[in-house]
Amino acid sequence: METIITNVTLLGGDAASMRKVSLRIDGTRIGAIGDQLLSVEPGATVIDGGGKLALPGLVNAHTHLPMALFRGLGDDLPLREWLEEAIWPRESRLTSQDAYWGSLLGLAAMVRSGTTALADMYFHVDAIGKAVEEAGMRAVLSYGIIAQDLDARGREELARAETVVERWEGRNGGRIRAAISPHAPHTVGERVWREAIGLARHHGVLLHTHLAETREEVRAWRSRTGESPVVSLDRMGAFGGPTLAAHCVHVDADDIALLAERGVCVAHCPKSNAKLGSGVAPVRALRAAGVRVALGTDGAAANDGLDLIEEMRFAALLQKATTEDPAALSAGDVLEMATSAGSAALGLNAGELAVGHEADLVLVDLDRVETLPHPSGAVSLVYAAGGASVRDVIVAGEVLLRDGELVTIDEERVKEEVKRLAGRYRN
Amino acid sequence: METIITNVTLLGGDAASMRKVSLRIDGTRIGAIGDQLLSVEPGATVIDGGGKLALPGLVNAHTHLPMALFRGLGDDLPLREWLEEAIWPRESRLTSQDAYWGSLLGLAAMVRSGTTALADMYFHVDAIGKAVEEAGMRAVLSYGIIAQDLDARGREELARAETVVERWEGRNGGRIRAAISPHAPHTVGERVWREAIGLARHHGVLLHTHLAETREEVRAWRSRTGESPVVSLDRMGAFGGPTLAAHCVHVDADDIALLAERGVCVAHCPKSNAKLGSGVAPVRALRAAGVRVALGTDGAAANDGLDLIEEMRFAALLQKATTEDPAALSAGDVLEMATSAGSAALGLNAGELAVGHEADLVLVDLDRVETLPHPSGAVSLVYAAGGASVRDVIVAGEVLLRDGELVTIDEERVKEEVKRLAGRYRN
Repeated sequence: METIITNVTLLGGDAASMRKVSLRIDGTRIGAIGDQLLSVEPGATVIDGGGKLALPGLVNAHTHLPMALFRGLGDDLPLREWLEEAIWPRESRLTSQDAYWGSLLGLAAMVRSGTTALADMYFHVDAIGKAVEEAGMRAVLSYGIIAQDLDARGREELARAETVVERWEGRNGGRIRAAISPHAPHTVGERVWREAIGLARHHGVLLHTHLAETREEVRAWRSRTGESPVVSLDRMGAFGGPTLAAHCVHVDADDIALLAERGVCVAHCPKSNAKLGSGVAPVRALRAAGVRVALGTDGAAANDGLDLIEEMRFAALLQKATTEDPAALSAGDVLEMATSAGSAALGLNAGELAVGHEADLVLVDLDRVETLPHPSGAVSLVYAAGGASVRDVIVAGEVLLRDGELVTIDEERVKEEVKRLAGRYRN
Repeated sequence: METIITNVTLLGGDAASMRKVSLRIDGTRIGAIGDQLLSVEPGATVIDGGGKLALPGLVNAHTHLPMALFRGLGDDLPLREWLEEAIWPRESRLTSQDAYWGSLLGLAAMVRSGTTALADMYFHVDAIGKAVEEAGMRAVLSYGIIAQDLDARGREELARAETVVERWEGRNGGRIRAAISPHAPHTVGERVWREAIGLARHHGVLLHTHLAETREEVRAWRSRTGESPVVSLDRMGAFGGPTLAAHCVHVDADDIALLAERGVCVAHCPKSNAKLGSGVAPVRALRAAGVRVALGTDGAAANDGLDLIEEMRFAALLQKATTEDPAALSAGDVLEMATSAGSAALGLNAGELAVGHEADLVLVDLDRVETLPHPSGAVSLVYAAGGASVRDVIVAGEVLLRDGELVTIDEERVKEEVKRLAGRYRN
C-alpha cells in the first residue's frame, strides 16, 4: 500500500521554514519526503496536495469518547454539581451500544477537525474500542478505576482495567494501545492506587489520571492529608513510569518542579477547565519548568467541542489574556503541544513529519475566506482555521478523511442513531 | 418581495422555549410568525427551515474591515509594538482598491458565520462602504479621527469624518448608517474630541471610540491627567449622546458605575484583547452594574477570526475561567450580547425575531457531528457550533447566504484578488 501526496506545503513554525514537497507513505510509515516528484509505483494512491499545508496529525491527550452523547447538558454548573446532577445520572443509564454510537459521534467530529490520536478514559471500553478500531483512529484506551477501598469492588475495578490492557493493547496493527487509569487522587483510595500503579508497571503501559483539576478538590485534599495531590501520587510511586496527568490546574511551584523532575506529561484541557469554572492552568510556568504539556479536549460534554485546532487557539489566547503577555504562548508553542508533545505523552512514534515516523498527517486548506491571507502557516492555522479547513486525514497510512468526506465512518448513520438515542438522555 | 421560512425552530434561551414556527418576511421586516403554515403569495421565496434553528442576526459591534488583509501578522506582539511594527507600516501603503478587497474578504467571512450587522471604524471608508453596500450588510460606518491638535490636520480629520456621515448615513435603504469616531482618548487631543462630539450631536449619530484597552495606556493617561480616561471623556461631554466604547478592559469600579449611569454601550472584544495581551475585560461586573455590553471581533488582524459564534463562546469561557465561576456568563448571556445588546448599541430595530423588527436573521443547522445532540439550542450553538453550522443569512429581507453559498459576494473572485494582493503586504 503506497500513497503519494504531491506538491504539498510543509508547515513550519514560521513562513521561512515552509516549503513545497512530495511525501510518500510506505505502508503505515512516512517513506520519503522530497523536493522533487517521487517515483510512484503503479497502483499507488495519489493525493494532490496543491494549495494545502501538511501537518502532523493532532493528538487529543485526554478524552472520554462516549460523552459526546451528553453534549449541551448542564451549562453554568461547577465540576462537582455538573457530575452529580447532569452526568452521573445519565452515565448510570448508558448502555454499551449507546457508548458505541456516542464514541463514533465523537470520533467523526475529531477526524473532521484533524485529530489522528487520542488518550481515552471511560467505561464500556470494549464498545469504545470497537468504534475506534472501525474508525481507524490511533488511541490509548483505558478503564477509569473508581474505588476507595481494596475490597471486592476495588478488586473488580482493577480487574476491569487489566482486562482492557489484555484485550486492546496492540490491536489494529498497533494503532490501539492501552493504559491503566486510576480516576483521580480523591476518587481512588491509596491501596487501590498502589495496585493500579503495579498493574501499569507489570504491563509496561501508560498511567493516565486526573490531577489537581479544581481548587476545592486540592484544598480538601491538602486539608485531609497535609500534602498536595501531586506530592501524594509521587509518594505512592505513581510517577515511576510514563504518566499522563490531565488538567493540573491547581498546582504550585513545588508541584511543578516535581512534575518536571519526574517527567510527568500534562494533558492541558483549557476549554473544559473554563466551562466548568475550574480555572486556568499555569501552562507558561509548567513549560518553563520543562514539563511536557500536551493538549486535550476532555469529554465533549464539558467543552462542548472536540476540535483541537480551536483548542490550540483557546490555549494560546487564554495564556496571553491572563498573563497580559502576548508572548506567553505562541502559535508554534500550541502546535508543538498538540503534535510532538501529545505524541510523546502517548508514547507514539508520530507528532512530526519525518521519514520513519508513523504516517499520521493532516492536509489543511488555508485558502478560505476565514484564513486568507496566510503569510505564516502556523499563525493562520492556530488563530483563524477550524475544522472546516481540514480536508484530508491519514492515520498509519490509511485515509480517514478524503477531501472533506469521512471514509471509515458512516456519518449519516451515526447522526441518525444519535438523534434516535438523544431523547433517552435528555432528562 | 415576500419570503417564507417554513417549519423552523425558534431559538429560545432554553429547551423549553424552543418551538417550531413559520416566519414571513414582508419587504425588509418580519411580517408574521405563526405556529401554522402562513399564507404565501404567488412568487414568494420559500425557504425550508426544517431541522434548522432561526436566530436573530449576529451584530459585530467593533470592526476594522480592511484589516482582514493583514491577518497572520505579528503574533506575540503587544498592542503598541503590533501597531507600530506590523500594522502601521502596511496601513501607510494601503490603497483604496485594496481596502475594498480586504473589506469584501472580511464581509464574506462574517456572512458565512452569521453576522448581519457591524460597526466599523477605519479609513478608506468609501471603499469600505462600497463593499458593505454590495454585500448587502447592515453597518454603521465611520472614519477614525487621529489628531492631537485642532490645527489644519486636526480640522482635515474632522472634515473627513463628517464627509462619511454626509455620504453614507441612510444609504442602501437605511441599511448603512454613519458614526463619528474619535479614535481613542490618548490619540485625539481634547479640542479635537470636543469638536468630534459636537459633530456627532449635530448629525444625531453614534459616537464610536476605543476606550481603556491596555493597562499601560490607562496608567500613562492617569499619570498625565490625574483621572481615568472614562472620567475624562465624561468631563468632555462624550457620553451625552449614544456612545459605543470598544474594549473597556482596564476600567475600575468608579468607571463602571459612570458607564452605567451614562448609558454607554461597551463593545467587548475578548479574542483581540487576549491575542494582544491586553487582558480580560470585567464583563460580569459591567453587566451587573447595568452596562449594556455588546460583542465585537475587532479587526481580523488582531483576532484573527471574524466568527461571532466563536467570539460568544470565547467570551463565556474566558469569564468562567478567570472568575472560576461557571455561572459567570452563560450561553444565553453571550447570545443576548451578540444580538439584542449589539442591536441596541448600533441603534437598530433588530436583535430579536419579532413582528415589525428588521428581517435580519440566521438559520443554523445543529444536526452535525460537531453539535449533535443539542438538548438546548442556545448551549449547543454557543459551545459547539461554528461558521460551518450557519446555512442561511438574511439582512433586511435579502438573502446573503443560501444553504451555505454566498449570494451577494463573488467568493472565488475575492479569494483570487486577495491572493494576488497578499504579497504586497507580506513584508
